[in-house]
Amino acid sequence: MSRFWSAATHELVPYVPGEQPKLAGLIKLNTNECPYGPSPRALQAIREAASDTLRLYPDPESTALRDAIARHHRVERSQVFVGNGSDEVLAHAFQGLLKHDAPLLFPDITYSFYPVYCGLYGIAFETVALDDDFRVRPEDYRRPCGAIIIANPNAPTGIALSLGEIETILRDHPDQPVVIDEAYVDFGADSAVSLVGRYPNLLVVHTLSKSRALAGLRVGYAVGDAALIEALVRVKDSFNSYPLDRLAEAGASASIEDDSWFHETTARIIRSRETLVDGLERLGFLVLPSAANFVLARHPDRDGASLQRRLRENNVLVRHFNTPRIADHLRITIGTDAECDTLLERLGTILRANRD
Amino acid sequence: MSRFWSAATHELVPYVPGEQPKLAGLIKLNTNECPYGPSPRALQAIREAASDTLRLYPDPESTALRDAIARHHRVERSQVFVGNGSDEVLAHAFQGLLKHDAPLLFPDITYSFYPVYCGLYGIAFETVALDDDFRVRPEDYRRPCGAIIIANPNAPTGIALSLGEIETILRDHPDQPVVIDEAYVDFGADSAVSLVGRYPNLLVVHTLSKSRALAGLRVGYAVGDAALIEALVRVKDSFNSYPLDRLAEAGASASIEDDSWFHETTARIIRSRETLVDGLERLGFLVLPSAANFVLARHPDRDGASLQRRLRENNVLVRHFNTPRIADHLRITIGTDAECDTLLERLGTILRANRD
Repeated sequence: MSRFWSAATHELVPYVPGEQPKLAGLIKLNTNECPYGPSPRALQAIREAASDTLRLYPDPESTALRDAIARHHRVERSQVFVGNGSDEVLAHAFQGLLKHDAPLLFPDITYSFYPVYCGLYGIAFETVALDDDFRVRPEDYRRPCGAIIIANPNAPTGIALSLGEIETILRDHPDQPVVIDEAYVDFGADSAVSLVGRYPNLLVVHTLSKSRALAGLRVGYAVGDAALIEALVRVKDSFNSYPLDRLAEAGASASIEDDSWFHETTARIIRSRETLVDGLERLGFLVLPSAANFVLARHPDRDGASLQRRLRENNVLVRHFNTPRIADHLRITIGTDAECDTLLERLGTILRANRD
Repeated sequence: MSRFWSAATHELVPYVPGEQPKLAGLIKLNTNECPYGPSPRALQAIREAASDTLRLYPDPESTALRDAIARHHRVERSQVFVGNGSDEVLAHAFQGLLKHDAPLLFPDITYSFYPVYCGLYGIAFETVALDDDFRVRPEDYRRPCGAIIIANPNAPTGIALSLGEIETILRDHPDQPVVIDEAYVDFGADSAVSLVGRYPNLLVVHTLSKSRALAGLRVGYAVGDAALIEALVRVKDSFNSYPLDRLAEAGASASIEDDSWFHETTARIIRSRETLVDGLERLGFLVLPSAANFVLARHPDRDGASLQRRLRENNVLVRHFNTPRIADHLRITIGTDAECDTLLERLGTILRANRD
């Protein structure tokens, strides 16, 4: 606290990201990173961009990257916005599209950054409870609101809505912006990008941090009607003319164009997820049906916080949210098969030791 | 305009950066970039960071870079904040430190992003006129205000305040945050970082885009009392947990540590500026005394806009601001000596042709 702070700064409750440990040798299944390195074409493009041209500002409109994304999703460049990670894209969407007189709606259990953005921009919001199976029910959103944001698949549950369910929400709210945050969509859900041409109220947000293995590069994007994109551009151009550096634009463009790396890697993670779910269930865990690169699971006889602590002591990081309804769960990122095996083995040891 | 936009989005008047031409072969003296490539150590560090570790999130606290900056300026890590370009650092400072009930003060002629941030965050402001010689006069800021921001050297005038003048402003306003934006300080002005320990109301903002030749990497930072830095951290952690990617952190850290590159390059640009000023004066230009990597100059017989247009036709980009008091001026970035010679030669031709 300080007399120099703006009034609102005193009230901020910042987001707390998962731990980025400085220790080596930990098995890191706590922040939903990809266990495999990014496309070699992306790394090569970055090395080539690491040249004297770094003395020059980047293209403020990131045209090359937006073109690559537009080609990938078969949309127009004017329907694509890029930012410094999807967190920045989301922040601009909250400020430019989700602040209205009526409250913003989002699930009670979802990405915990959403209420933080509401605090930052003074946005009124209401949470809508997931049902007893931790599912989003579109009919629960039939209430007066200014806008809606839903993560699909939802985080940290991993459960996905069908495109039909998303269309229900879009049709129920033709005058409200609806943001679908698809950070995890490439691991088994259907992308709402295919609906963009038909719903001018739809904005779909993606990240390169998960299914493109580029969390360290900070690139995210949004696809939607050009009028929605224009709102994001206006906010961005009032905040930072050049949010993407030259290396990020080069690496991200090359990554988006590498379809074979993308399909192989996401398929591999989906297979590992299925194996991990089997293993967790054999240990007695109840695992929510995940379409993401993580699972949310609880053991009927064990406390989530203490399991996480015991795993940490055994050099395995998983995430625990000290949050109503999911405090007994662990969120476990899908690692390599070897990492998943180690996790299962150490969980087995911990569970047996507790039993004695 | 769209019914989906937040109300404030309709009112935004975004910043317009200088042109980033997609044409090759232009002499680019319009956006104050460094004419020389960055430190080879920075490029090497980036290439080494372009590895499989890009799959992992960066350090959200950018500890290594903040340590490098702290060592460089002989301050503590807790006194350093880093961001995705100094524009992002400034944006967070406007939101977290410069919004108060009383108006923010800044010069009538200065970095044109300042009023844009005020629009984005709903900050009341008043401009304080530069004197007839385009100088900031500290005594003109002796009026009720919520905070003050001054670019030193000022842009686009290039004129610097002395540290004594900055101390006058700091002492006159012990209860208001005072931001000194030192984007251009390394080209001949004294940095107020040396005052940080004595003035808890002082925040100094730097960029790596100019004197470190890394405009394409997007790194800026602030140095100030830990309580001021904490306000920026709170805003940042409510906006984007990881504003700096792994490549930017690696490259920026190596750049900050390369003192010999830094001293040689800034000295070289200062020498080129002196030669360019001589040449412009020989052509009849009136040049403001610059401590930056650009000069603001006008020709008594020629219109600024038309001179800029004629230069553009001759493949030389300089910046013209269609702004009261400086619309007859050109802002010319210091290029290589060869680029400056070409500029002078083409200006000479244009002036002679107009005379005929």
